[in-house]
Amino acid sequence: MDERLKKQMDFALEIDKEKNIFRQTHISGHGRNENDAEHAWHMAIMAYLLREYSNEPVDISKVMLMCLIHDIVEIDAGDTYAYDEENKKTQAAREEAAKKRIFGMLPEDQAGELMALFEEFEAYETAEAKFARALDNVQPLMLNDSNGGEDWLKHDVSQTQVRGRQNKTAIGSKKLYEEVVDRIIKDNVLRGNIKDE
Amino acid sequence: MDERLKKQMDFALEIDKEKNIFRQTHISGHGRNENDAEHAWHMAIMAYLLREYSNEPVDISKVMLMCLIHDIVEIDAGDTYAYDEENKKTQAAREEAAKKRIFGMLPEDQAGELMALFEEFEAYETAEAKFARALDNVQPLMLNDSNGGEDWLKHDVSQTQVRGRQNKTAIGSKKLYEEVVDRIIKDNVLRGNIKDE
Repeated sequence: MDERLKKQMDFALEIDKEKNIFRQTHISGHGRNENDAEHAWHMAIMAYLLREYSNEPVDISKVMLMCLIHDIVEIDAGDTYAYDEENKKTQAAREEAAKKRIFGMLPEDQAGELMALFEEFEAYETAEAKFARALDNVQPLMLNDSNGGEDWLKHDVSQTQVRGRQNKTAIGSKKLYEEVVDRIIKDNVLRGNIKDE
Repeated sequence: MDERLKKQMDFALEIDKEKNIFRQTHISGHGRNENDAEHAWHMAIMAYLLREYSNEPVDISKVMLMCLIHDIVEIDAGDTYAYDEENKKTQAAREEAAKKRIFGMLPEDQAGELMALFEEFEAYETAEAKFARALDNVQPLMLNDSNGGEDWLKHDVSQTQVRGRQNKTAIGSKKLYEEVVDRIIKDNVLRGNIKDE
């Protein structure tokens, strides 16, 4: 096998490990914890189908690829729960090292491309990054709502915390924020699944 | 929520069930069975990174979307193992009904688009369908090879069976067939993981 293809196949096998990185979110039907690969798959399809609601026009292929690769760093860095303030302090450093090692397995041109795409997602400045991030927020919110808010209850999460995260959804999609996120938050506060603080 | 968005969100939640459809393939590191959502995620990233090896030029965004949605019908129809000749007889009818019910949850334009894309994948005629199908074959082959061929051993699979399926990989990518698939098959026949019949 030529060296370029070997690097690509080694990377392809390496990212299989993302299927073992489990999140705090549970799949619908009161199922097991969701893993990063499934989450990324779900986000990418949702991004495609909901692209009409992006605040700004987006290159949807780029958004989808961003969704698919945005959690690969967690193979080394682990999942950092959205409301785990302690672990969030070291998240950037852990993910930076992971980015270099994992994407660095690819041929140089593709390593550079995927690192740049990951950095773009993290920097949260382009239209594509903002819309991808909106889906990164809406997808687990939708699952948790479908499960009667059990993940919020378990972690004793407050409305301030959820809104702190979800306010960013509006930067990518005002429509998804107003018609999906806001409605779900209000409903779960009313039901006592999210603390009204 | 307006009716269009409601249909899109209902579909988004429905496809979460794909995470419960388990395949015969095991994830690397002698892990658990892989599910359809993870498989689709893996295929889509591999398609993007290996697109230079497609026999024909492809619209890679279309290939990726095809990869992401190609197994959604299995939510109703279940996974049909590649070498299960009995179940393969009813596969088309089961998947046809599933296609109508599940994609039919979407607004009409998107339902039509995704059904057409699924049909294109199944018909196996366009450059995009051929390349997507090549990845559908290469991804589990790669995983199974990484696990010492345990899935072939378990199902007592012969070289004729594996080549019967994998010959189609060459129609999408001669390069992947010759440098990845053929090498893996020969190696696993030699090791006794695939019967030399």
